[in-house]
Amino acid sequence: MSENSVIYGKNAVIEALENCNREFNKILISNNVHSDIKIEQIKSLAKKRGIIYQFVAREKLNALEPEGRHQGVIAQISPIKYYDIDEFIEESKDTYAPIVILDGVEDSHNVGAIIRSCVCAGIKGIILPSRRGVLINSTVEKTSAGAINHISIIKTNSLVNTIQKLKENNWWVIASDHHAEQNYYEIDYTDINFALIMGAEHAGISKSLLKLSDFKVKIPMLTNFNSLNVSNAAAIILFESVRQKMRKK
Amino acid sequence: MSENSVIYGKNAVIEALENCNREFNKILISNNVHSDIKIEQIKSLAKKRGIIYQFVAREKLNALEPEGRHQGVIAQISPIKYYDIDEFIEESKDTYAPIVILDGVEDSHNVGAIIRSCVCAGIKGIILPSRRGVLINSTVEKTSAGAINHISIIKTNSLVNTIQKLKENNWWVIASDHHAEQNYYEIDYTDINFALIMGAEHAGISKSLLKLSDFKVKIPMLTNFNSLNVSNAAAIILFESVRQKMRKK
Repeated sequence: MSENSVIYGKNAVIEALENCNREFNKILISNNVHSDIKIEQIKSLAKKRGIIYQFVAREKLNALEPEGRHQGVIAQISPIKYYDIDEFIEESKDTYAPIVILDGVEDSHNVGAIIRSCVCAGIKGIILPSRRGVLINSTVEKTSAGAINHISIIKTNSLVNTIQKLKENNWWVIASDHHAEQNYYEIDYTDINFALIMGAEHAGISKSLLKLSDFKVKIPMLTNFNSLNVSNAAAIILFESVRQKMRKK
Repeated sequence: MSENSVIYGKNAVIEALENCNREFNKILISNNVHSDIKIEQIKSLAKKRGIIYQFVAREKLNALEPEGRHQGVIAQISPIKYYDIDEFIEESKDTYAPIVILDGVEDSHNVGAIIRSCVCAGIKGIILPSRRGVLINSTVEKTSAGAINHISIIKTNSLVNTIQKLKENNWWVIASDHHAEQNYYEIDYTDINFALIMGAEHAGISKSLLKLSDFKVKIPMLTNFNSLNVSNAAAIILFESVRQKMRKK
């Protein structure tokens, strides 16, 4: 990953200026962008935080975000800080800190959407393996709509070790596996700190992680058409946990 | 849209050969692709259906799918058949035929993922406005993992007229709207034929459609972080309807 992260698109930059504590290098605005309410908002938020913005040729933005989805605005900010699991466990001891573990999810859009759902569902951390699947990149940032700044991103060399540590610290490990017998809504999520494992798009969850799981759950379907997109599957399970919590209140 | 649709990627082509009744023009396989089980399966399925396959230079595939995600295989098939709403209502009268309506969803990945969730959740039709948002394109086909061949795709010039027709024919119209008071899980989906409206990524649902809705529902969140990705929101509501049905069985 480059020294700086790049956030692109008007809404994403506004969200970052409002909520993101990471250090901003500067904001680049295309000198032929049509100035609208959002551009004005970006300029005023930047001023308030003492962040430099510059008007540059659109080509400079295109070089930083080659897909051309930047809408004329790019913020260069310090890279995301990854936590390690010990740090996370230490900080969240004795609090409600459910976690999602991505076992090699490969598509940046999926990772971004999952992080967004996680934040909406009150999940406190997301664990990514450092050598498989996707880490945080600008597509993840963009797709998460800024959610990556509201959750601890934990990077690990060994999901097995990480899960064992979580279990020793009273997290219950739930694997989403379409071969499971139990339905995801048959678990009570309200009284436990859970760690939900979602598998890679095609391969699913590794056997070694399935073995470590306390529960395996499936999402029952009304047709035998193959399976759900992984971010949709994650959302379904996470919001069942929210539903149960809202009902208990 | 071009005369032919294009399906790319090994799994998508296999799924289409197995389940899609549309007419295949031919299948193009890169002449430098590594032949594996899936390529062999594609060749044997094509033979069985009497469909021609050709080995061509990879450049030819790249020209048809410029993002280079074709994995060496592209099928050219007849374009999707769109239904009109009268046809759909006629065919599904007196059956269980829940529907999803996309009010201008703009991202092809979202439309594809929503169609995939719809098929898994037993939804029978999906309605797209012909002049706003996305229609079926090759990204939608790919993201849907073949699901577009298992559901009626209805195209309409007027969502207002279409929804009025559905209401006259006893569909209950549910709008997903984050300003709603009722939670999505407070509705009983088991005894009604419902039509769920999902709004565009930023704009949400048009006022004219909100007015026509019988129910407005929101997805409650555990944090005040903005909102969910539209395909994840759709999955959450659709699978609540599945959960209720499984529980009633």
